[in-house]
Amino acid sequence: MKKVHSLTGMIDLIGNKGIKNNVAEKIFYTEKVLKNIFNNYSISEIRTPALEDTDLFKRSVGDSSDIVNKELYSFLDKNEKSITLRPEGTASVIRSIIEKKIDSESHKLWYLGPMWRYERPQKERYRQFNQAGIEFLGYSEGLAELEIVSIICSIIKKLEIDDSVLKINHLGNKESKQKFCLALQDFLKPFSKELDERDLQRLNSNPLRILDSKNPETQKILQDAPKIKDYLSNESLDILELIKSTFSSECAIEIDYSLVRGLDYYTGFVFEAVSSNLGAQDAYLGGGRYDNLCHELGGKAMPAIGMAIGIERLASITKPLEKPQTLVSLILISSNIEPKAYKIAHKLRSLSNSINIDVQLSDGSLKSKLRRANKDNASYALIIGEHELETETVIIKPLKDQNSEQTVMSFKDIESFIKEIE
Amino acid sequence: MKKVHSLTGMIDLIGNKGIKNNVAEKIFYTEKVLKNIFNNYSISEIRTPALEDTDLFKRSVGDSSDIVNKELYSFLDKNEKSITLRPEGTASVIRSIIEKKIDSESHKLWYLGPMWRYERPQKERYRQFNQAGIEFLGYSEGLAELEIVSIICSIIKKLEIDDSVLKINHLGNKESKQKFCLALQDFLKPFSKELDERDLQRLNSNPLRILDSKNPETQKILQDAPKIKDYLSNESLDILELIKSTFSSECAIEIDYSLVRGLDYYTGFVFEAVSSNLGAQDAYLGGGRYDNLCHELGGKAMPAIGMAIGIERLASITKPLEKPQTLVSLILISSNIEPKAYKIAHKLRSLSNSINIDVQLSDGSLKSKLRRANKDNASYALIIGEHELETETVIIKPLKDQNSEQTVMSFKDIESFIKEIE
Repeated sequence: MKKVHSLTGMIDLIGNKGIKNNVAEKIFYTEKVLKNIFNNYSISEIRTPALEDTDLFKRSVGDSSDIVNKELYSFLDKNEKSITLRPEGTASVIRSIIEKKIDSESHKLWYLGPMWRYERPQKERYRQFNQAGIEFLGYSEGLAELEIVSIICSIIKKLEIDDSVLKINHLGNKESKQKFCLALQDFLKPFSKELDERDLQRLNSNPLRILDSKNPETQKILQDAPKIKDYLSNESLDILELIKSTFSSECAIEIDYSLVRGLDYYTGFVFEAVSSNLGAQDAYLGGGRYDNLCHELGGKAMPAIGMAIGIERLASITKPLEKPQTLVSLILISSNIEPKAYKIAHKLRSLSNSINIDVQLSDGSLKSKLRRANKDNASYALIIGEHELETETVIIKPLKDQNSEQTVMSFKDIESFIKEIE
Repeated sequence: MKKVHSLTGMIDLIGNKGIKNNVAEKIFYTEKVLKNIFNNYSISEIRTPALEDTDLFKRSVGDSSDIVNKELYSFLDKNEKSITLRPEGTASVIRSIIEKKIDSESHKLWYLGPMWRYERPQKERYRQFNQAGIEFLGYSEGLAELEIVSIICSIIKKLEIDDSVLKINHLGNKESKQKFCLALQDFLKPFSKELDERDLQRLNSNPLRILDSKNPETQKILQDAPKIKDYLSNESLDILELIKSTFSSECAIEIDYSLVRGLDYYTGFVFEAVSSNLGAQDAYLGGGRYDNLCHELGGKAMPAIGMAIGIERLASITKPLEKPQTLVSLILISSNIEPKAYKIAHKLRSLSNSINIDVQLSDGSLKSKLRRANKDNASYALIIGEHELETETVIIKPLKDQNSEQTVMSFKDIESFIKEIE
């Protein structure tokens, strides 16, 4: 019979705790650590739908961004209206806050979930991927910046990310940004003929984004261009220094005046964490302040700062998996299904949250079931055969300690055994 | 400026631990408890993409089901191929196992995530909703059935679901199912003119599903129809009794011979948990054995049993929220941003995973910040003003105990205080 295949660029994550370095388990672990950190910082979860009006992303992420130009996963709904699978999380969060009319309050929010981009299929770039993010809404420049960097330091520490550098920059206040953009345009206009089509387009729409150009010709021209550093107010320069000095003992921080980030909506402080273990695309999280987005989407003027975390990339450079939970493999050897034996499994599970109990459900010999228990990396096998059922006993076989002998315990004592190994 | 709105039938979940009975928090809590139970039973997580080839659902869920007939959220991709946002989880899991060529091994898998159906908008029916599920693959009838019911009992217990009944039935083995279907067809054919269009269609494609008909006329006709009970083998009847007797002390179980479930692929044991607190649509989880699906989708013959859980419905009937984690509200009162004060927050957070520390990021008076701390349901406010910064001290103000006085502590001692209240 014809098989049905998954769609291009869409992968399945299948966990398997028995296999070391299972990609899916690393992703699940990374997500768990992130959620714990978000809770620890007293941030609330927000979950927006996968689908939004395409307009939302055109108006937020920006027409000059790669995402909107080429990568939106859009289609027409049954009423011929263009809808899009969200390519990122921020726009939907702001849409939600405006729609619920809570855009004059302050919010600390996190999200985690799948995002979609219709990219050309290539190695390690998928059309569905996972992103976590934080949005601090209603907080102006200051403590909120420190809070974001504090969270990044906690992530780097808890996940033991090696060779990580946090690059920070400031795009200036409204006034200085405007002055710098004008200076940049004045400088670049004489080079118009040498700029590629995309950079030429950016020259009018958002000249700052040209600093981000991947074109080596453009980068060469930019060497003599005005520098943002010379246009920043003392306040902006000070906050960069303040952030650096506050957290330099916690994680490596570098001020990088060429950092602009790939989305149109940033204002003020921006940042990106990179790791040399990631290769060419070395950023695994990034974000910044976006004080105008809420108003631009039809809401109130609401200062805001946020960040997004690429789960797959971050997971690929996390070091240790948490010490795995103790696994006990329960082997029932009996010609009939014995409720008495099964009830023990049910009971044992209610005793402890930190012990995982695997009842082997297949038919098969004791030998094959012990092999399976070892393969699954179980610490103990509990064996109940016909004789044990008659005598109401369980054989306990330690699987990790070669020197320990197997022991026999009564049904009653097995409960205290589970409590003991918890 | 024009606001962008969310799409019809798509809602946002915004958590807020400070508000009692916040719908989103109940959903997040329910999901957390389910994940803990799945881990406790040593089941691995699987995550499949949101989008699949439309064919997958036509071939699995079945042409005669409501889902495929009217509710698929489908559209054409850029190559004019029909793709669909998954309406349920099982088909994708089986597709994944076949595609990865691991359909001759056994698997215990769980999933949790959004699903989509293009339903007519109506109260409490959304186009995006959350489902969790379990699939036990490669296990034939027996222990796997007990394991599934054991999990259901654990869910009911942990989430303290009231007035819940687990209805169970058996659709028979291949032979008895065929005999019963023929008998049912023979009985119903003389009533062809009285059946509505959908039931008439089912009469040929899957007569069993007519037992599920919502049409009162049909139900009246069915009163004298042959009963599945009279066609079941002793083995099938025995397993129903075995399940009932094993778990009757754990949760209310009823054998209901009219239960058939709304999807085409079930064979053997089927079940549905209902709660009278849910109103007309009273099922919050359901499932059964589906031994033929893997082969029908192009894979090997692989016995399987699974269940799906409606998160929104289950969350709406869970009783208590877990005792919330202790919240400490940190209030910095100072005209400038003081790295020294902020560093304390960063440090305190690294000390404990179970204490949530909220740094108040807004400007504002001490009074307004204390009001906020109380509103957020914080247990303590830690206050650092200019004087405290100079003397390296912190004011600790208990917010829940009216009789406790505020105390002053040195920066050093505050760490042991956090450890104490942990």
